Amino acid sequence: MRSPALSEQIEETVEWLASFGKTDNNGVTRPLYTDDWLFAQKAVEQRMNEIGLNAYFDDVGNLFGRLEGTLKEEGVILTGSHIDTVVNGGKYDGAYGVVAGLIALQYLKEEYGYPKKNIEVVSLCEEEGSRFPMTYWGSGSIVGIKSVEDIQNLKDSKGTPFFEAMKQAGFGQGKYRNSKRNDLNCFIELHVEQGQVLELEGKSIGLVSHIVGQKRFTITVTGESNHAGTTPMNYRKDAMHAATEMIYSLLQKAKETSPDLVCTVGQITLDPNIPNVIPGKATFSIDTRHPDEEVLASFCDEVFKEFTTITNSYKTQLHIDNWMNEKPVKMSEQLNKVTESILTKEKFSFKKMTSGAGHDSQILGQYCPTSLLFVPSHKGMSHSPFEYTSTEDLEKGIHLLIKVLHELAY
Amino acid sequence: MRSPALSEQIEETVEWLASFGKTDNNGVTRPLYTDDWLFAQKAVEQRMNEIGLNAYFDDVGNLFGRLEGTLKEEGVILTGSHIDTVVNGGKYDGAYGVVAGLIALQYLKEEYGYPKKNIEVVSLCEEEGSRFPMTYWGSGSIVGIKSVEDIQNLKDSKGTPFFEAMKQAGFGQGKYRNSKRNDLNCFIELHVEQGQVLELEGKSIGLVSHIVGQKRFTITVTGESNHAGTTPMNYRKDAMHAATEMIYSLLQKAKETSPDLVCTVGQITLDPNIPNVIPGKATFSIDTRHPDEEVLASFCDEVFKEFTTITNSYKTQLHIDNWMNEKPVKMSEQLNKVTESILTKEKFSFKKMTSGAGHDSQILGQYCPTSLLFVPSHKGMSHSPFEYTSTEDLEKGIHLLIKVLHELAY
Repeated sequence: MRSPALSEQIEETVEWLASFGKTDNNGVTRPLYTDDWLFAQKAVEQRMNEIGLNAYFDDVGNLFGRLEGTLKEEGVILTGSHIDTVVNGGKYDGAYGVVAGLIALQYLKEEYGYPKKNIEVVSLCEEEGSRFPMTYWGSGSIVGIKSVEDIQNLKDSKGTPFFEAMKQAGFGQGKYRNSKRNDLNCFIELHVEQGQVLELEGKSIGLVSHIVGQKRFTITVTGESNHAGTTPMNYRKDAMHAATEMIYSLLQKAKETSPDLVCTVGQITLDPNIPNVIPGKATFSIDTRHPDEEVLASFCDEVFKEFTTITNSYKTQLHIDNWMNEKPVKMSEQLNKVTESILTKEKFSFKKMTSGAGHDSQILGQYCPTSLLFVPSHKGMSHSPFEYTSTEDLEKGIHLLIKVLHELAY
Repeated sequence: MRSPALSEQIEETVEWLASFGKTDNNGVTRPLYTDDWLFAQKAVEQRMNEIGLNAYFDDVGNLFGRLEGTLKEEGVILTGSHIDTVVNGGKYDGAYGVVAGLIALQYLKEEYGYPKKNIEVVSLCEEEGSRFPMTYWGSGSIVGIKSVEDIQNLKDSKGTPFFEAMKQAGFGQGKYRNSKRNDLNCFIELHVEQGQVLELEGKSIGLVSHIVGQKRFTITVTGESNHAGTTPMNYRKDAMHAATEMIYSLLQKAKETSPDLVCTVGQITLDPNIPNVIPGKATFSIDTRHPDEEVLASFCDEVFKEFTTITNSYKTQLHIDNWMNEKPVKMSEQLNKVTESILTKEKFSFKKMTSGAGHDSQILGQYCPTSLLFVPSHKGMSHSPFEYTSTEDLEKGIHLLIKVLHELAY
């Protein structure tokens, strides 16, 4: 299927979509319900119609392009991803899944005509949570776990209420169909990996078995601030010393527990933060993820038992604030079997892996059989203008999507 | 010698001196050459004259009160401390040594008349370095290691040049005697401990053998910033993980090396400092002190060898910036013998100890036999309005000072 024409079409479509909200440094800024976001959705709507899909919005701003199945069944095979970006993000995160869906459906229609089963490509309105403190607004509205009540008190950093922004963009007024869907047979999301594993291991496709569960904590260790010169080591209640032993023990244990477990201490604050004063307080973050909920829970339990022993030995106080708990979501084994047999037949190199990042698939995956497929991210860079995936890799992903959709729908 | 009259005099004198630059929360702010500083020095000058001392300034603003010896020798027995404070400091740091000198000399003169040898009490102009980036300006000028050249380019936070501030306070114009002295036989400084050791161990007096040497470093560990979810542990170059192992190994080693060694990591910065991003850079401070230069140097050498091993194992880069090196200073054994025999005779509980903080004694101690004596600091608090030493302890220190000066000068 690989052809110069397809390569060119992919490059052109990626650049075209990235032109909406393009930043000076070749990045993309396209937050939910902004003008750039709206122009992008309207342009995608137009393109859907041009390639022979029936385009329609729902009432939160998700955009669908439908290829009607000849069997006239109710169910829909859905593919796509999200159209919104972080501030100064890249051209591929989310956008690639939308581009891939457009190109795949166009190809299928041109090559094979109408499918037996309905296929739709979706450009989900929101995933990143970068304008409002709300993530997965698009997919959450489709499955019905998010509604207007959830956004009533939300404002963006400029003070604009969520609902106002939605109305200004033309949504939230009942002009379009209700977002909640009961007709989805399955969802297939093609996305850039946002990690470096595929590139480092020389694989073209990542076949995701689970989206990991995630827990986040803020740990506060309180000791006693004192003079760095006049306080002997054995008279100290050094919050930093205690915190350091905790963090070291945490990260070592994370390395030893399971290859699928990741753990990050990305943030730390000392009080006071002065070279010649013993820290009286150390506050640090923990972000830990694993595809198995029980493994994750027992890892945290053991770590915090150890933290308690450590804090006692330093005569410091420990406070643990668990402010995020996301359960792991299993992708569809059945869909993955279909995909795997195509990958094997096409002789694509691939890796069965977990997704350490969150995606719309983790929302839709709780309601219908879902498949998440990765293409490599160069150097793992993401949420940055330097996000890059080679056209060859983008094409392999689209090639795979076409084959999977053909298998499922024709 | 203990008497209600002396207690009252001590309390009155401490409060009187603290009234210059008193803050709303009962602290003291008296930076070098400010109005409050000048009023305090002028008031001390007046008090010196009132109690029968010959008061005189030198050209940097050090203030001396002289009790002339009957032997008419050149040498001077000097006691005192510094008059300047940090911003919102306490009533005792520095001030206590000045107050003690005034009361001791008044007592000696009233009780025993003029001494054989000259005694002077000094109110040193500057020790803290809290207005200009310069410490020990007073004592450094006396011993001749600091001069106008050292301050030429220095400004305070408001942009006032050091020299301008000095001139506005009436100094630096040759109106007073040159600061450099060659007539000092010895220096005795009475100071609050600024640590909690005496209080915790129930001792009244600290007899200091050494002021510790001090080294400070800024350590930068550079790894690779990456997504906390999509980067497996074994593909990470986590600057925080490497830094944590370094800090833990450093502080453990500090505990094991020598009871006199202290080591503090008081400051750390991560880049970026975000819970769900692996830190690409970790920058932290090291402050380490010990009374023996060689022990300190070899501790640092071994630590940095270990840091190199650690950084290699994490594939991170290590940069070590050594921005402070202060050598330890030995106090006079002979003076300490005199003091110790008095302490034993008076049945004062005392502890032979090192000073982990810097004092004017470390400057003068390099030029003449010097003795540094501590009284307890409640809870070790210092550089704070909560600085506190009981009148009983203050009185014991002054009692000791009187006895030592009597022994040396009469």
